[in-house]
Amino acid sequence: MAEVKFLDGGMSAVQGFKSTGIHCGIKRAKKDLAIIYSQEEAVAAGVFTQNKVAAAPVILTKEHLEATGGKCKAIIVNSGNANACTGTKGLEDARMTASLAAQELGVDEKEILVSSTGVIGVYLPMDKISQGIKNIWQDLQDTNNSQAAAEGIMTTDTFPKEVLVETVIDGKTVKIGGIAKGSGMIHPNMATMLSFIVTDINIGLEMIKEALKEVVDVTFNMISVDGDTSTNDMVLVMANGLAGNKMINEKNKDYHAFKEALFALCFKLAELIIRDGEGATKFVTVKVKNAQTLEDARLAARSITTSNLVKTALFGEDANWGRVIAAVGYSGAAFDPNQVNMYIESARGSQQMMEKGMGLPFDEEKAKAILKEKDITLIVDLVSGSQEATAWTCDFSYDYVKINAEYRS
Amino acid sequence: MAEVKFLDGGMSAVQGFKSTGIHCGIKRAKKDLAIIYSQEEAVAAGVFTQNKVAAAPVILTKEHLEATGGKCKAIIVNSGNANACTGTKGLEDARMTASLAAQELGVDEKEILVSSTGVIGVYLPMDKISQGIKNIWQDLQDTNNSQAAAEGIMTTDTFPKEVLVETVIDGKTVKIGGIAKGSGMIHPNMATMLSFIVTDINIGLEMIKEALKEVVDVTFNMISVDGDTSTNDMVLVMANGLAGNKMINEKNKDYHAFKEALFALCFKLAELIIRDGEGATKFVTVKVKNAQTLEDARLAARSITTSNLVKTALFGEDANWGRVIAAVGYSGAAFDPNQVNMYIESARGSQQMMEKGMGLPFDEEKAKAILKEKDITLIVDLVSGSQEATAWTCDFSYDYVKINAEYRS
Repeated sequence: MAEVKFLDGGMSAVQGFKSTGIHCGIKRAKKDLAIIYSQEEAVAAGVFTQNKVAAAPVILTKEHLEATGGKCKAIIVNSGNANACTGTKGLEDARMTASLAAQELGVDEKEILVSSTGVIGVYLPMDKISQGIKNIWQDLQDTNNSQAAAEGIMTTDTFPKEVLVETVIDGKTVKIGGIAKGSGMIHPNMATMLSFIVTDINIGLEMIKEALKEVVDVTFNMISVDGDTSTNDMVLVMANGLAGNKMINEKNKDYHAFKEALFALCFKLAELIIRDGEGATKFVTVKVKNAQTLEDARLAARSITTSNLVKTALFGEDANWGRVIAAVGYSGAAFDPNQVNMYIESARGSQQMMEKGMGLPFDEEKAKAILKEKDITLIVDLVSGSQEATAWTCDFSYDYVKINAEYRS
Repeated sequence: MAEVKFLDGGMSAVQGFKSTGIHCGIKRAKKDLAIIYSQEEAVAAGVFTQNKVAAAPVILTKEHLEATGGKCKAIIVNSGNANACTGTKGLEDARMTASLAAQELGVDEKEILVSSTGVIGVYLPMDKISQGIKNIWQDLQDTNNSQAAAEGIMTTDTFPKEVLVETVIDGKTVKIGGIAKGSGMIHPNMATMLSFIVTDINIGLEMIKEALKEVVDVTFNMISVDGDTSTNDMVLVMANGLAGNKMINEKNKDYHAFKEALFALCFKLAELIIRDGEGATKFVTVKVKNAQTLEDARLAARSITTSNLVKTALFGEDANWGRVIAAVGYSGAAFDPNQVNMYIESARGSQQMMEKGMGLPFDEEKAKAILKEKDITLIVDLVSGSQEATAWTCDFSYDYVKINAEYRS
């Protein structure tokens, strides 16, 4: 398969798409409105929060994608206000946002997708949104600024997150650019992992839906900062076909090449989210190997990445394998506790901590050195099959509590 | 039904049982071995950790209860060492502990139940256990000290936990005494919620099994300090029949009276565990009302009590109802997000925060005053049925992270 290259430029480098971000007045001073615009008709697909309490923009965007059969001209995203738990009026406000943007852009209102992140339970300031849409559309005539868009969707992120990858499919250069905001929640009622991705690949709706779902399942859905699922989570992708490759309508080698590139992009965005996790001091990779089923591997890996005890031990740089195996034990994954092997790894080396379910005597100094690194890998070998899964998390520090408890004081 | 009275005295006040605790040398200086002895033949039942990685004493105690058909003469508990992840040798050590105690006490080894809590992955120091059993049995000849037993099972608990209740059943005074240790985990690899209960009620095996399971499900199983399930959790009950009430062999009114008294005892022990939770500054009751099914109510309540975001908000005394409803949303419980009502309560008053899924404008000062109290109740009304569940937790403070990250530094 063709190499996947990381380049600079974010979404701005993908032909046929323009994006930017501005301050419209929801936040005090920072950018709080972003637009991603497709000059061509684009196919679009999304994955959304599983939280039963879905925010108004999640409901409306799903409705629009359904109504158009996966077509989209633009995505309008505001930060500073989640438009969640806002009832009928919230849904009307989301609809009004799409409608105002549709008028301004001269497109069908159903071809506008909307997304929000920020405080729960407060109505959108529609006057500011309305003026903001006019301003951002005017700005977009002279600019194409993916980084400004990435800034416009930030809440408590400490840096904007954008990634661009390039690969060759069917002899054509294909680009995929994306932005994301973090899953950390710093301000009260703040939440949400958002990502928006654009690509010039020529691909059918069913195939891009499928690729997005498969890739999100092994990237964004395998990261955890604090185990709380937001009401506004959303990942959207748009593809405009300008790369000129033969339309992908089946799971052929081109599909797989695209999926690989999409994975590279999503994984990088997910990594940036974890590195910017609230209070995070470490980037932790958890690999569960040789599980009976994929589901067992995923359950075990996610159970470790959401264990407060594992995460505080990592913050304390403590080789606390007992907490890791206990988290696997209550994960619901099928395995034989008397077969499990466990290892820790970093740039400073590797050490086996457990063999056949029993702790091994280990070199405390070496373990400490391994765990001193910023990037750490925990490997759990269940020795029960051949399936594996990888999940990512950060450690759990004082600052997580500080950020989430002290915001008003 | 007869009143359930709380009295002083713990297990020591229950006729026919004797207990004590000593230092045998597993820990540096504190008590680390406890015995609970029944002079009569007692029926015994237990509930155990659901963690697939069950410690050796859990495996052995289940095996013994099975072999004897629910008979027990004594429970031997050590703290400081969990005898978990210790393989075949760990199981042999547990068996040896029971065997040594059986010789000393002159009973069948299968009538000895064993329990451990402490560091995972280290073999029990059998020389110290062996001498300890001799010493504790000698001590028990002249003493009956429930509080010493409660101290002997502590790990990082800051105070011993013992409760005694008394009620009248079939015209007879019945006592139930119990001890417990906390679910907080302070030292590396420390874990475990343990509770041991003795009663003089006359009751059949099936009925005491059933009562224990039903009561544990709504007490110990509804508390959470940090969401991590230990490898050693165990609740055991022994009943010797000395109260002289008519043997309870069906779910008649005597059974229900007993269950009520057992509930009062277990609830109190569970409350003490939460109040002694790692870094806890508040005792939080979460009531979920009007759910479609009991399972929905339990899922929603437990999801709230395990949400880091809810718990850090409570530490910050922030009326952050958005985090509460988000936790219900991802709990898996069936409900209509547009119907939910939510309230906060404490000794300082009560305030509705949410109506029909939407935030209400609320008095920030009053909310702050309510949340300043040490005991707080969150009430979530799902308005979807008639089932309810209550769960308990503590808040999540800096000290939780400190306790769990810094132990070695």
